[in-house]
Amino acid sequence: MSAPVPSFYDDLGETLAEAWRLIGRGVADRRSPFHHPTAATIGIDGRPQARTVILRSCDAAGRTLRFHTDGRSEKVRELAADGRIGLHFYDPGSKIQLRLAGVATLHRDDAVADAAWAGSRAFSRQCYGIEPGPGVEIGAGGAFALPEGTDEATAGGRANFCAVVASVTALEWLYLAAAGHRRARFRWDGEALDATWLAP
Amino acid sequence: MSAPVPSFYDDLGETLAEAWRLIGRGVADRRSPFHHPTAATIGIDGRPQARTVILRSCDAAGRTLRFHTDGRSEKVRELAADGRIGLHFYDPGSKIQLRLAGVATLHRDDAVADAAWAGSRAFSRQCYGIEPGPGVEIGAGGAFALPEGTDEATAGGRANFCAVVASVTALEWLYLAAAGHRRARFRWDGEALDATWLAP
Repeated sequence: MSAPVPSFYDDLGETLAEAWRLIGRGVADRRSPFHHPTAATIGIDGRPQARTVILRSCDAAGRTLRFHTDGRSEKVRELAADGRIGLHFYDPGSKIQLRLAGVATLHRDDAVADAAWAGSRAFSRQCYGIEPGPGVEIGAGGAFALPEGTDEATAGGRANFCAVVASVTALEWLYLAAAGHRRARFRWDGEALDATWLAP
Repeated sequence: MSAPVPSFYDDLGETLAEAWRLIGRGVADRRSPFHHPTAATIGIDGRPQARTVILRSCDAAGRTLRFHTDGRSEKVRELAADGRIGLHFYDPGSKIQLRLAGVATLHRDDAVADAAWAGSRAFSRQCYGIEPGPGVEIGAGGAFALPEGTDEATAGGRANFCAVVASVTALEWLYLAAAGHRRARFRWDGEALDATWLAP
């Protein structure tokens, strides 16, 4: 088949670099499909759980990704019980899927949390001050209270703010290209990388 | 706040109807974000696993959804070991997220599988004839073989075809509206429905 293919198409090293580049763009560009991955966890009852999160930072060299959530949320309870996490990205335009596996650490009252809170916008901070906390049953759709949008009022949400840092141990690439699909798996054991193509 | 809100905004019954309507549109419209949910499962090693699937049918009354996969894939091994499944939908345009919980049944050699195969296109059928099967390590990105696109050649993929039917036991709705977020949970015990608003 003669469709043009990108430079990374048949190159494992370039494929991995492209994956990190796309994740990095997801942090910077809120319109990118990589801006809002799906975080998969093991539920308290053992069920698989998945929800959208907003990607806040990515360190390709250190192989970490960060997102923020409410410390009162179910996913924090789940990750506290079992830190294993999957992060799933899919761009229906480019037909590229990334599946990252890793282990999450929760940061609520440390320098990581402080820096993440300091870097977040007032609008985002508002959510952490909602009462009652996320997932609590309420009698009507709007039966919850938001703090007013002043710096002082939103500061109250700091106690509920949680930065989640996922350390990536494996990354799987899938590219549904017209010229032929490409799938690759990258696994790390410390700094040692095992990379291989997989049948799609 | 005075932003206009849709009719389902503060109505649990209409919210549930809207959720099923969006899923139904996802089946029919391949450009809908609801066309390609993320299926979450428990991995063989206990890790959370998530990947994009293509929604093939939806029966709102029977509360079932169907997608297709290769019987040789890891997710089939996972679902055979633990049928619990999460199906996650997110539309970044409307900012509506659906999280469905259910139990999956695998159909490879029965009337459900036959009907699903009969309703699939030749282009889709091709994938089930790829050798080796999905996820097998290969020496180069293109070191796999596709059957030619004739009816006879693609018929060989039938043995690898698997229809997955998820029976939904719970549905969670999240709508990040400018007028105020809305979150609702619907759970079924047989035909009995428990519906409630949740704090977002």
